[in-house]
Amino acid sequence: MTMKKNHEADPGPCKTDARSCSDYRNRLSPIIDKIIATCHDTRCHTAADDGQLPSREAVINILHRLRDVLFPGYFNSEKIDPVNLGFHVGRALSDVFDTLAEQIRRSIRHDCFKYDLPCTDCAQRGYEYALALLEAVPELQNLLEKDVLATLDGDPAARSTDEIIFSYPGIFAVTVYRIANRLWRMDVPILPRMMSEYVHGKTGIDIHPGATIGERFVIDHGTGVVIGETAVIGNNVRIYQGVTIGALSVPAGRITEIRGKKRHPTIEDDVIIYSGATILGGDTVIGARCVIGGNVWITSSVPADTSVMLESPRLIYRKQPGDESEEP
Amino acid sequence: MTMKKNHEADPGPCKTDARSCSDYRNRLSPIIDKIIATCHDTRCHTAADDGQLPSREAVINILHRLRDVLFPGYFNSEKIDPVNLGFHVGRALSDVFDTLAEQIRRSIRHDCFKYDLPCTDCAQRGYEYALALLEAVPELQNLLEKDVLATLDGDPAARSTDEIIFSYPGIFAVTVYRIANRLWRMDVPILPRMMSEYVHGKTGIDIHPGATIGERFVIDHGTGVVIGETAVIGNNVRIYQGVTIGALSVPAGRITEIRGKKRHPTIEDDVIIYSGATILGGDTVIGARCVIGGNVWITSSVPADTSVMLESPRLIYRKQPGDESEEP
Amino acid sequence: MTMKKNHEADPGPCKTDARSCSDYRNRLSPIIDKIIATCHDTRCHTAADDGQLPSREAVINILHRLRDVLFPGYFNSEKIDPVNLGFHVGRALSDVFDTLAEQIRRSIRHDCFKYDLPCTDCAQRGYEYALALLEAVPELQNLLEKDVLATLDGDPAARSTDEIIFSYPGIFAVTVYRIANRLWRMDVPILPRMMSEYVHGKTGIDIHPGATIGERFVIDHGTGVVIGETAVIGNNVRIYQGVTIGALSVPAGRITEIRGKKRHPTIEDDVIIYSGATILGGDTVIGARCVIGGNVWITSSVPADTSVMLESPRLIYRKQPGDESEEP
Repeated sequence: MTMKKNHEADPGPCKTDARSCSDYRNRLSPIIDKIIATCHDTRCHTAADDGQLPSREAVINILHRLRDVLFPGYFNSEKIDPVNLGFHVGRALSDVFDTLAEQIRRSIRHDCFKYDLPCTDCAQRGYEYALALLEAVPELQNLLEKDVLATLDGDPAARSTDEIIFSYPGIFAVTVYRIANRLWRMDVPILPRMMSEYVHGKTGIDIHPGATIGERFVIDHGTGVVIGETAVIGNNVRIYQGVTIGALSVPAGRITEIRGKKRHPTIEDDVIIYSGATILGGDTVIGARCVIGGNVWITSSVPADTSVMLESPRLIYRKQPGDESEEP
Repeated sequence: MTMKKNHEADPGPCKTDARSCSDYRNRLSPIIDKIIATCHDTRCHTAADDGQLPSREAVINILHRLRDVLFPGYFNSEKIDPVNLGFHVGRALSDVFDTLAEQIRRSIRHDCFKYDLPCTDCAQRGYEYALALLEAVPELQNLLEKDVLATLDGDPAARSTDEIIFSYPGIFAVTVYRIANRLWRMDVPILPRMMSEYVHGKTGIDIHPGATIGERFVIDHGTGVVIGETAVIGNNVRIYQGVTIGALSVPAGRITEIRGKKRHPTIEDDVIIYSGATILGGDTVIGARCVIGGNVWITSSVPADTSVMLESPRLIYRKQPGDESEEP
Repeated sequence: MTMKKNHEADPGPCKTDARSCSDYRNRLSPIIDKIIATCHDTRCHTAADDGQLPSREAVINILHRLRDVLFPGYFNSEKIDPVNLGFHVGRALSDVFDTLAEQIRRSIRHDCFKYDLPCTDCAQRGYEYALALLEAVPELQNLLEKDVLATLDGDPAARSTDEIIFSYPGIFAVTVYRIANRLWRMDVPILPRMMSEYVHGKTGIDIHPGATIGERFVIDHGTGVVIGETAVIGNNVRIYQGVTIGALSVPAGRITEIRGKKRHPTIEDDVIIYSGATILGGDTVIGARCVIGGNVWITSSVPADTSVMLESPRLIYRKQPGDESEEP
């Protein structure tokens, strides 16, 4: 290997050229001052004004420790055995309780400041809701076990429940959904959505914490799945990557009247929805045992026991193989 | 900025209100006891019972150090030059060997416990398979170089191979696939799937480690791509984001007979598959030099040299511009 | 719980079996030597040869600190109040300046080595471009505020701007795009693409830094969105998950002539594009106020005020409910 021509030696960072470096620093100061001034002028520091927001790190920590409790032994680095399992779970739950209560308190308090509401029992509500969530852990374990078994029952590529718990993004997303949905139903602000967007980033699966989802729910592969706030999904439903259960867009002027109304579809029991299908609208009901083919676009109801699919695509036999640039 | 009304001073976390805080702690104890009791009653601690599972952190570390070796100088923080390159690569490989052998041992041992098989040579097999993977590094480098060059050849937005290696998620996903596939072919359990799900989370690209993929394979953009366990993909194939090469769903009662059979399509050489196309079924063969248009849904074979595409969509000229809520 | 049969005690890692362990080490050495030799033989250490590449960690740090400045108080762990806000922002900007200047310098210098160009002012250009980016911060804040408000205006599930800033992946992706696009327009190599691929991995939203995007741009949900290098998007455009604004594939032989030409569509003002729609080609113009339905595939222009949608899918009423394996 030879040194290339035309190159000065690397001057390195600023230290090596002290004069020009301080010039740049001098030019930097007024820019910073201007940005700080802008910040005081506009509403850009809303967040700074309204009490401390929940911490994203704390929320992530809560989710991972809860997952560790819900599936003991899968995600922790230490070895778990029958003797230390109790201590391990007890310690995790005790820590989760403290962190969760504090983050719920912050979420509620932030909302109080924001809407100028009295906030006399934020701390107490934090503890109450954190307790209520932990009380629901056995029920959540029961639900998630059914989700795991339903995944195994329908997926020939799954070797064992271990593999599913350990590595299937669908199970992680549904786990976080079931936690976030509990907090959502207690009217905890901000926190449930932070949880769902965390796992959205990790898995590409975006389940709004307000959605209502039955037992034995399976999301296979999952990237691109969207399930909206007012969607209602029955038992034993299986959906694939890229499926949207969403809302129709609304004109900006009508947003306020629509907020909180049912805007997303109802999916009844035992439905399968293949990859890329889009189902939209609050009045849309997909009847029990329907099979929705991939890439379809549905904005009205489908009766029970129906298959819906795209027409077969057009085939074109090319005259000049290799000339693929002309066609699609 | 003025302090808002109606707000008590922030009481802060529990310390400031000692009595109610200990009340909550007292209520927490029986909840924790109940959760621990549940854990001993059910199979929820399967994992705790079955030897130590592979560590997710170790698996991530293996993948990143291997990537650093496969593309030296791109991903490490220290400066690499011709003098220290050998030491750097040697050190990385030596570390990867130890970690990988241990994680393979854990994977095999976990399976032995799970299915109550004898496990007399788990450690030795860990070392043998780790050695075999490292022996394959030059071949993997050769394959990945071809993948990088094929990406450059077909992407006008790519400025250089550096940019592709450094920032293209498709190359990261294919790198992990080629590593995980080697381990899969040695029948290492759990670990290959952990690898593929790690990179799935990072890139949105879900390639099952059991898939068979030829040379010069390109995934552009990639989010939402799914390639199933028994898919067979030839040389010089290019696929775009949202493409599924998947299986048809099967009734729960027939899962066992189908496990291990070919359930995913064959894609022959020189095929291009545009974004959002879904191709399903173990008997489906997409012939050489086909161009599959975006968003199509294919469940049967397509002969060589064919273009497949959707009919042109319907156009509706609206009477009242702005009234977009009525239509789609 | 009982100990299972047929199992030796866990031999643990290599330490417990010293002889076979050193055997494996002895077999490892020639493998490592061979890999190192390969590295010197081929171009596999291109990166090692070309000056130090930008650091991924530094790029991530820049983006997160800039986001903290653009939305003060949302993403930092310490409490921000009106008194410390100025210090906080000042410190962040000063740190960003140093890191950014150094990473720009590395990017430019790497390119100089790569193409054997003279590189006499890499450090100075690093400082100049970093200053220029910071000077643009107030304008970026102004643009991003409009993006946040447009998101709120069109999304009934959004409770507040806080929630949007805090947890919407679309806003994070657009924030990074607006930063990366500034650097792109200064012709900074490598760095802008590293930024866009970082946020692509985090959100599943892939916006090329070269794209031109107007005000009040909204991406809802976002997983799978792809916006190409030469796309031009007007004001007040809203797109959903899985939307591609991309290029037609080109035969490998014509890549060079096409590089840099407009290859991606133009989307005019006030357009809505539903999930999964794919719009391709440099001559394709989607006219103002169009509504593009989900999952359509468009490769030619659409006049203003038009709705485009798929035909209704075919419905099949099944004779034997439960026999879903036959059809889709």
